[in-house]
Amino acid sequence: MEKPTVKIFAPASVANVGCGFDIFGFAIHGPGDIIEASLSDNPGVTILSIEGDQGKLPLIAEENTAGLAVLSMLETLGLSMKTGIDLKITKKMPMGSGLGSSAASSAGAVVAVNKLLGEPFDRMGLLPFAIRGETAASGSPHADNVAASLLGGFILVRRNDPPDVIPLKTPAKLFCTIIHPHIEIKTKDTRMILRKDVTLAKAVRQWGNVGAMVAGLMSGDYNLIGRSMDDEIIEPIRSVLIPGYDEMKAGALEAGALGFSISGAGPSVFALSASENTAEKIGKKAQHILTEMHLESDVYLSGINANGCVEIEN
Amino acid sequence: MEKPTVKIFAPASVANVGCGFDIFGFAIHGPGDIIEASLSDNPGVTILSIEGDQGKLPLIAEENTAGLAVLSMLETLGLSMKTGIDLKITKKMPMGSGLGSSAASSAGAVVAVNKLLGEPFDRMGLLPFAIRGETAASGSPHADNVAASLLGGFILVRRNDPPDVIPLKTPAKLFCTIIHPHIEIKTKDTRMILRKDVTLAKAVRQWGNVGAMVAGLMSGDYNLIGRSMDDEIIEPIRSVLIPGYDEMKAGALEAGALGFSISGAGPSVFALSASENTAEKIGKKAQHILTEMHLESDVYLSGINANGCVEIEN
Repeated sequence: MEKPTVKIFAPASVANVGCGFDIFGFAIHGPGDIIEASLSDNPGVTILSIEGDQGKLPLIAEENTAGLAVLSMLETLGLSMKTGIDLKITKKMPMGSGLGSSAASSAGAVVAVNKLLGEPFDRMGLLPFAIRGETAASGSPHADNVAASLLGGFILVRRNDPPDVIPLKTPAKLFCTIIHPHIEIKTKDTRMILRKDVTLAKAVRQWGNVGAMVAGLMSGDYNLIGRSMDDEIIEPIRSVLIPGYDEMKAGALEAGALGFSISGAGPSVFALSASENTAEKIGKKAQHILTEMHLESDVYLSGINANGCVEIEN
Repeated sequence: MEKPTVKIFAPASVANVGCGFDIFGFAIHGPGDIIEASLSDNPGVTILSIEGDQGKLPLIAEENTAGLAVLSMLETLGLSMKTGIDLKITKKMPMGSGLGSSAASSAGAVVAVNKLLGEPFDRMGLLPFAIRGETAASGSPHADNVAASLLGGFILVRRNDPPDVIPLKTPAKLFCTIIHPHIEIKTKDTRMILRKDVTLAKAVRQWGNVGAMVAGLMSGDYNLIGRSMDDEIIEPIRSVLIPGYDEMKAGALEAGALGFSISGAGPSVFALSASENTAEKIGKKAQHILTEMHLESDVYLSGINANGCVEIEN
């Protein structure tokens, strides 16, 4: 007899979104993880297989974001000694790309297992486990990618621990162009190069932009969304690690982008625009700039993915 | 024959609002300035009288916020050598109290003179002049109090110079209790004691709160408004200058306040609540705490004043 099984697609996500370092994130369509969870007779969490990771991800549950997320969920339910969960992870997205790969595994896994166990938690109730899971990759709790992948839409993280995450309404015609240059940057390195202090003056301008971004999203003011993406604190430091950054940004803005910034810690970059046509133009332009530098890249075009994690057919 | 005259009431305002140092402000009902502007035959700006300032405010136009604001407006219009404006200022609010006294004079003056000249500017177009005027008191351009008094409602300052100010929708039942202890703090001193740098970790939490405050206001989520008022950067430093601050805050939260913080640079403090009854209780409690410390105080109860500057009968 087949074991009960649930298969979940967990979308990739863009975090930070310009001014909102560590607090903004949104889910996209296209790239993501497929997480398959089954009940098993062996108590605890067993990762049966990982595909599409070129052997890079750990199979030990405690060290894997999906595994750790499920372990913390079973523990809270008092089931860690009784219930057995088998996980199969299929990466349908690049890793270490700034698109929330580790977060997608974590989010997808808790949604799959929650379903398998008869949904003891609602979606927001799963967030602490998904955040806990992601610490296996990032070391400290960060809700931005995880919440976007789990809940879908555009989210604001007021606090990470305990999480206080607010879903934000977004206007209908908000399109995202994501450009993923094929170079590798480690999240831990990109965090290390950040300064520990910022000037109060810059911080004030940053929170002015953050407030304006929320107002722009909620009121559907595209121009305000674009003006608010301005980031004086993180972008100047991290963008130097991304070849062609300034040219791609200038090209995107010239093509009509509302704004352009780094996706998460990079190396992926993204633009927001108010039309699909513009989003497409930006992608071609950026890819051309990278090609001239002999760098390969992927381009993803997407609206804001309002669904988050969704169940798919077995 | 009577000279053409316009009389404007410019409301007091609360700036910062907890997490939003230098970017949030809202206008209140009750205290404010009355600015009377008349056309005169003497080119330039003449301050004929100031009442209610105990002789503290300068009568020289360039040094007075109302005078400087009108001068900068006339200059932009190319009228500084031709048009004469007489101003009478009546303070109906405490000065140096953290309620935007100098900003009210500046805002009221530009609205009055704009009307007198046949409204060459709309309300938002007057903002740069009102900001310029306020530099006579604060030394640097700060739009928070000025924009709130000028435009009314709850405003977000994305940038001061050139100003980018976004009016935010507020929920219907948002009440404010303002407690003004009769002690004097100079704005320049309260700015001097602030640190020039903040940790990135605190800055991130602050912009998380700023984003959440905007979301709370725009979606009418009172609880979120309260959670977002949390301020780890300015309040711990400035609150030590305000006697009884911690007791008043604890008392207000116990009485049901959504949040409690310093109004502008203080010494006034304020609480937000979702009912008039709670707002009243908070005022009594805080005043009692100050009385026990042998300090006199004024209490103002108000909703958010959506009107900003309004013309009143001569």
